[in-house]
Amino acid sequence: MSRFKSEYFTMKEKDALEYAATELDFFPKDTKLSCSEIGDGNLNYVFKVVDSKTGKSLIIKQAGPCARIDENIKVSPDRNRIENDILRIQYKLSEGLVPEVYKYDEVMNCCVMEDLSDYVILRKALIEHKKFPNFAEHITDFLVKTLLLTSDIVINHKEKKSLVKNFINPELCEITEDLVYTEPFYNCARNDVFEPTRAFAEKELWNNEELLLETAKLKFEFLTNAQALLHGDLHTGSIFIKEDSTKVIDPEFAFFGPAGYDIGNVIANLVFAYENAEATIENRDSKEDYKNYLEDTIVKVIDLFTYKFNKAYDENVKERVATYKGFKEYYLDSIIRDTSAVVGLELVRRILGMAHVKDITSIEDVDKRARVEKICLLAGKNFILNRAVIKTAKDFIEVVKTAESIGF
Amino acid sequence: MSRFKSEYFTMKEKDALEYAATELDFFPKDTKLSCSEIGDGNLNYVFKVVDSKTGKSLIIKQAGPCARIDENIKVSPDRNRIENDILRIQYKLSEGLVPEVYKYDEVMNCCVMEDLSDYVILRKALIEHKKFPNFAEHITDFLVKTLLLTSDIVINHKEKKSLVKNFINPELCEITEDLVYTEPFYNCARNDVFEPTRAFAEKELWNNEELLLETAKLKFEFLTNAQALLHGDLHTGSIFIKEDSTKVIDPEFAFFGPAGYDIGNVIANLVFAYENAEATIENRDSKEDYKNYLEDTIVKVIDLFTYKFNKAYDENVKERVATYKGFKEYYLDSIIRDTSAVVGLELVRRILGMAHVKDITSIEDVDKRARVEKICLLAGKNFILNRAVIKTAKDFIEVVKTAESIGF
Repeated sequence: MSRFKSEYFTMKEKDALEYAATELDFFPKDTKLSCSEIGDGNLNYVFKVVDSKTGKSLIIKQAGPCARIDENIKVSPDRNRIENDILRIQYKLSEGLVPEVYKYDEVMNCCVMEDLSDYVILRKALIEHKKFPNFAEHITDFLVKTLLLTSDIVINHKEKKSLVKNFINPELCEITEDLVYTEPFYNCARNDVFEPTRAFAEKELWNNEELLLETAKLKFEFLTNAQALLHGDLHTGSIFIKEDSTKVIDPEFAFFGPAGYDIGNVIANLVFAYENAEATIENRDSKEDYKNYLEDTIVKVIDLFTYKFNKAYDENVKERVATYKGFKEYYLDSIIRDTSAVVGLELVRRILGMAHVKDITSIEDVDKRARVEKICLLAGKNFILNRAVIKTAKDFIEVVKTAESIGF
Repeated sequence: MSRFKSEYFTMKEKDALEYAATELDFFPKDTKLSCSEIGDGNLNYVFKVVDSKTGKSLIIKQAGPCARIDENIKVSPDRNRIENDILRIQYKLSEGLVPEVYKYDEVMNCCVMEDLSDYVILRKALIEHKKFPNFAEHITDFLVKTLLLTSDIVINHKEKKSLVKNFINPELCEITEDLVYTEPFYNCARNDVFEPTRAFAEKELWNNEELLLETAKLKFEFLTNAQALLHGDLHTGSIFIKEDSTKVIDPEFAFFGPAGYDIGNVIANLVFAYENAEATIENRDSKEDYKNYLEDTIVKVIDLFTYKFNKAYDENVKERVATYKGFKEYYLDSIIRDTSAVVGLELVRRILGMAHVKDITSIEDVDKRARVEKICLLAGKNFILNRAVIKTAKDFIEVVKTAESIGF
């Protein structure tokens, strides 16, 4: 029997190469393969195997028996299974907007998948002020298909309940509950506040009882509303992109939650790129050009989402009561309202909370960074407080521009 | 080894007696026991074992390998486990307001529990126009403790998610989704409509687009809002009562859903008793007296629930954001709004849907029955449509009395 079929062991490059040659049907029998370990994460070993003749390649991602940075941290192998299950579901629903999984191996606790080495991380590319004219088209396909098609509008309710059960995700949801919905809204020890921003945060957010009440309502929505199978961490660092293709990665936060959570994360992270451009592009025309591109992208994300959602709803609705007059509009309205709220939460938590974004932290000029941080906080507050009346792409852009127009 | 420990077999009376004598520590060793099978359900065998000397007794409830009325229907033994798990949770939370479970036996697939033979079913007693002055006190204890203490207000969020997972209940939720939220609101073949009521239902409900839209919103709330561990079927037929004690039974519909669902079911079924009194008590003083008792009970259910909820909230709240100013009031408000909606749904579905209530079907006079059916439908419609402004006990009573005052 193959040595890969009996018992788990942590692979080295030569093992991964042999695995690719003997356990998979991916490469021709007599070709010459090379293999290198390219992982830089904390948990997994990532092997890239290339056919030197054709250039065809794949990735083998193996979970270690413990975290590779600290042998004392035991890692649940279940995490790999969940990621594999989610990727297959999202791949099918979104018709290819996540990496394809070729094989999942329970013994070796590894996953063989599409190689995305020719893609770049969207956040990094946006900080370098690159443009991707097809991104809004792709990401709205992903959002509409993964969210609407896993909701009770479309899916059989019993089938959905078994999916809900499979993807109950207590540990990773707790991270979001704490880091997004709770800690950024008070002077929590785990927060990481840029000193020039602190006084503004205290005055405008931490002492604002009206705002705090709204965050509590939103946290309970997040805790209880099993609306759709979310990606759960859909920021621009979870998106691989090249000119003609977009791939959403790292779905380990996936669970059934409010659909607006994913959409709001996408938009908020585009706002961070927009404020990065505001603070870092010196040339006035270049700045205007790049900010226009991002504004256009945000507008398209909202407009295309709305258009495709309406179309997909009409084509796929299975639930009788969801065809009642007025329900589609009510349902979409509630998703857009949740989206606005999550844009606000993400804008605030990435400025005040524990986990920051490079778009902002890479701004070297202290005053400029402080200014755009305050813009994000003010816009964030308004996205939360005024979510009931923020409905169109124009409304979303208006919130950001109004915050920018204040002379901080 | 005991013959009860090796393999499942369906018990007869003599087996259950031996089981009680040898497998349990409940009775003294040398006493004289008697046993009779008292089940009249479709699924389970129910043995009552009595100590002739002391009168002490218990119940052994065994699931058959298939439904006892039809050998072809295979019954999942898991159902017994779930009922057992839920009863133990509810017993602990409510401090004894459900039957005590002494033992659950996985091999024999049976459950040994408190004997409630000296209790009566509340619905039957209300139809006989009996009074239970402590009922509102007991049932509001049950509601506040089982609902609030299983919500994210109090319970650790990770622990709650594992409970949600344990009690995902697709088959029985589907029954509610269909029979409560969908079928009663159109001319569905499975409905069972009393002919003199049909024209009213068509005009006031089935052709009312505004109402239909609200039922769709409510159905999606029921499908997605995992707020608290519900009983899920808390009508007056699921309540055993005697003068000084109340026991809630049959929790097989339990799952995490909107808290108002249980409260609304209790109130709607008190309204059915109220309309039964309206239609069947001839003597004017007796009728007024009994209706006053029921009105008083409904008022107490709402007022005591509100009072105890506020108290238990302050004493038990663990979630930081749930202590923000205004959140408790917002949260209770949303529960009362959901309660009003469910009162309405239950009033409608028991008149038009597949499963009726004896309070109404036992009214022999056709005209009187038709009149109170229309009262229930009209009140039901208003409980749904006006749920945002139905807040106090007085508001709830007002809806019923207004419907009664219309000269049908």
